[in-house]
Amino acid sequence: MREIAILGIGQTPVSENFEQSLREIAGEAVFKALEDAGRQTADGIFVGNMLSGILNKQENLGALIADWVGLRGAEAFKVEAACGSGAAALRTAIMAVASGELETAIAVGVEKMTETKGVETTEALATAADADYEVIHGLSFVAINALVMQRYLHEYGWKHTDFAAFSINSHANAIHNPYARLREPITEIDYQRARMIAEPINLLDASPIGDGAAALYIVPLDSVRRASNGNHRNNGRPLIKIAASAAATDTLAIHSRRDPLWLSAAEKSARMAYQQAGIEPKDIDLFELHDAFSIMAALSLEACGFAARGQGPRLAQEGEICIHGRIPIATRGGLKARGHPVGATGIYQIVEVVQQLRGEAGATQVPDAQIGMAQNIGGSGATIITHILRIA
Amino acid sequence: MREIAILGIGQTPVSENFEQSLREIAGEAVFKALEDAGRQTADGIFVGNMLSGILNKQENLGALIADWVGLRGAEAFKVEAACGSGAAALRTAIMAVASGELETAIAVGVEKMTETKGVETTEALATAADADYEVIHGLSFVAINALVMQRYLHEYGWKHTDFAAFSINSHANAIHNPYARLREPITEIDYQRARMIAEPINLLDASPIGDGAAALYIVPLDSVRRASNGNHRNNGRPLIKIAASAAATDTLAIHSRRDPLWLSAAEKSARMAYQQAGIEPKDIDLFELHDAFSIMAALSLEACGFAARGQGPRLAQEGEICIHGRIPIATRGGLKARGHPVGATGIYQIVEVVQQLRGEAGATQVPDAQIGMAQNIGGSGATIITHILRIA
Repeated sequence: MREIAILGIGQTPVSENFEQSLREIAGEAVFKALEDAGRQTADGIFVGNMLSGILNKQENLGALIADWVGLRGAEAFKVEAACGSGAAALRTAIMAVASGELETAIAVGVEKMTETKGVETTEALATAADADYEVIHGLSFVAINALVMQRYLHEYGWKHTDFAAFSINSHANAIHNPYARLREPITEIDYQRARMIAEPINLLDASPIGDGAAALYIVPLDSVRRASNGNHRNNGRPLIKIAASAAATDTLAIHSRRDPLWLSAAEKSARMAYQQAGIEPKDIDLFELHDAFSIMAALSLEACGFAARGQGPRLAQEGEICIHGRIPIATRGGLKARGHPVGATGIYQIVEVVQQLRGEAGATQVPDAQIGMAQNIGGSGATIITHILRIA
Repeated sequence: MREIAILGIGQTPVSENFEQSLREIAGEAVFKALEDAGRQTADGIFVGNMLSGILNKQENLGALIADWVGLRGAEAFKVEAACGSGAAALRTAIMAVASGELETAIAVGVEKMTETKGVETTEALATAADADYEVIHGLSFVAINALVMQRYLHEYGWKHTDFAAFSINSHANAIHNPYARLREPITEIDYQRARMIAEPINLLDASPIGDGAAALYIVPLDSVRRASNGNHRNNGRPLIKIAASAAATDTLAIHSRRDPLWLSAAEKSARMAYQQAGIEPKDIDLFELHDAFSIMAALSLEACGFAARGQGPRLAQEGEICIHGRIPIATRGGLKARGHPVGATGIYQIVEVVQQLRGEAGATQVPDAQIGMAQNIGGSGATIITHILRIA
């Protein structure tokens, strides 16, 4: 398989964006990625998106966005894996270039979800869960995560406030990210006093939705090497390659899992990714995980080998998830504070890892970051896609 | 790139299926494809589907169906390209195996659209068109095709009845296909008297929607060769390989195209496919085209080089599209009479080409079929994916 390099990145601020249409938001991210890559065209464009049909009355996003960004004619389609759609689109782009079918490709994640046409966003998001066996009982997506968190507190003896460090870290990092939605710091008192949504999940456990798009421009690594006479730098910056890409699934319904407190698809895809990259968890310099809810951050750290089972919150409490800790997470704010435009999130994560590896992360730069991991989750653990990036 | 073989096929009858859920319909097709391939598992499953979010309140179909068919844990996600979703899912599966990421994969197309929850199917199908520039003016999908047909009649001087031969051929072939939705013959008189839907398109110009699923099991060709000591037969049947796979796009909105009567993405993807396979249109023994409306059959034949511009209907009138004609189309009924479960259609087409190349097409067998083409269209020509299959 051909190795893949990420040549360009682009993103829009996560916000309530009433000024731009779906295609305009996607276009902004794609144009930035093209400019960043120093390219003007691509052979194909793969769109990560979950909710355009329900919320924007628009499907067929591949051709729509290809045309809008000046790539009329190019191969294009949409990839959907609920909140994991972004990483699934990147994975499709990788397979397209790795197979030799295309020489260059763009993966763009986009979601426009704050201005909807007659549908409740909560109802739309519930389509990530099992319609026949979960949602039919009135469970919303946050309610499902609340059940998991409740069980976690019961099983391992943690208190709700023990999760505060996750949200405090995310907000602290987002302050320095101009693309983040929530750029204000929070304290443990704020966390304790936050409005309850679905017990025990309160407002500061949950990530905000948002409108946004992020894009990546990918090429075969050897094409860049040839062009630069073996020099691995990209316009003077470190060139970033994809060291691993792996996807796995689990049941949609949490009640069907052997252990509702274990993200088996996170474990499986991470294990495959470590193997592909030839590394171990201790080699990872930062981890953009899928902290849609604080409980998911804990479960992800455990499943991927950074904390023992039931010990995720300890890592946060001890400061090991902070920029200078053992395994920095949510370095640009994470889902919690950068925001969670669902189908776009997986691409934002990769963009942020690239920023870190290039040394472009400013005040939240992880010192000497060489290897970064991103993990995108669709549903309450049903579809999980892990990527590892490193300096080429 | 590794060559790919289709080892197994499966399909369900296209129907109004109130007895089975979405996952059950998909599962039936997958189980048949597994049995046909003589396999019990697969590394990944790619789901072609357009409308599950809107009509079935269910996204995250990849993991849902993987779990249901006993592949819990396997890589899975959904691919969407409006009515071209099926072929896009196959193309994704091909790229996954061709890149070496997976060794075996299933592509399954599924749609459950006759039993919906509070949404009009016509409104849902309109999401294939441009929401901001077409649908906002009240255009439905059939209305868009009616505009194209009206223009075609005006531009080239044909009468509406000149299109009758397309629908008559599709219905004649569907009689012999146990999976077809409309298995009754129609006459030219029936066609002329059919109820008008959107002038000039009447009920017998239009394909019926339906519930259904079709599935394919694919592997690297060399893995089958090795297993059979170089013998290219598949359990005594001819082994079918994918000789070409190509995708192209055009604008969603017909008013943005240079020529609304020319399917440029059909032309481009077919040209790429001919080149990959090293053949010309005259080498194609049958062509499963996307006859969602009779006008689309004519336009497809022209764009793919089987008829001169504006001469598609002549091919039909002269009987050249029939089983013993120069270029048999809709050999198992086509969209018009087999039915059009939108996200599944592209896989049904491939299943039908495989049936023909294996010599399993019964009363509508194309004599000595060696090379077959399938072309799946998303929107009114926006996303077009062409596959060429041949005996290995």
